[in-house]
Amino acid sequence: MADCVFCKVVAGESPAFVVGSTDAFLAFLDTRPVFKGHVLVVPRDHVGTLSDLSGETVGPYFTFVQRLAVAVESTLAAGGTFVAINNKVSQSVPHLHTHVVPRTKGDGLRGFFWPRTKYASDEEAASYAERIGKGL
Amino acid sequence: MADCVFCKVVAGESPAFVVGSTDAFLAFLDTRPVFKGHVLVVPRDHVGTLSDLSGETVGPYFTFVQRLAVAVESTLAAGGTFVAINNKVSQSVPHLHTHVVPRTKGDGLRGFFWPRTKYASDEEAASYAERIGKGL
Repeated sequence: MADCVFCKVVAGESPAFVVGSTDAFLAFLDTRPVFKGHVLVVPRDHVGTLSDLSGETVGPYFTFVQRLAVAVESTLAAGGTFVAINNKVSQSVPHLHTHVVPRTKGDGLRGFFWPRTKYASDEEAASYAERIGKGL
Repeated sequence: MADCVFCKVVAGESPAFVVGSTDAFLAFLDTRPVFKGHVLVVPRDHVGTLSDLSGETVGPYFTFVQRLAVAVESTLAAGGTFVAINNKVSQSVPHLHTHVVPRTKGDGLRGFFWPRTKYASDEEAASYAERIGKGL
């Protein structure tokens, strides 16, 4: 897509620190990492969000994401990884990208990272489960 | 696994608000949601982290995750979704689970959600890209 930042990276028209690639996917550094070594994994084809990824591409794409998660953890001697996709909301570039972020125990991300609420009642929770399940 | 909370959910020994399931996977509500309708997607078999998911299971698992992302967004009229996996660090239950969280623009998660740092130089960034790439 003409104005897509990540399509430009894929086309070699915008610079990026490439970590690895396959025929269908590219992995490169996020220029504003949550932690250094934070990688973005994108399909070469323009795909907007996870929902838009074709059925036959889901497996190969996440297999590549998995390889990146293994590589980030092992090469950076990280304690673990955070693997995440923002779909539409908080999605800065409208081209599907999975974040693979190295994590270390005590890195300070925990406390504010997962604010939590609660259901008012079991009935409310059950109604949410039923509602979402009907959309499957 | 005997003491695994999510294995107990899968076995029906612990209660959960089930959203949907397949022969291999189960989706149920997180009891302490980031936002209401926050779903966890797990393999029925005990798998620790994304790295531990077998090659033949990656595709079917993320196809089910994708279905959940579509369902959460459409049934809750959400603006988008946040799909995330904590591997080891910040992973509260050591059984692979993908969070599918409904998002709404202005829901307040943006500001603190993605703290960012930067590379000291292009050389430093290049060295990270090379290092991780060697582990692929």
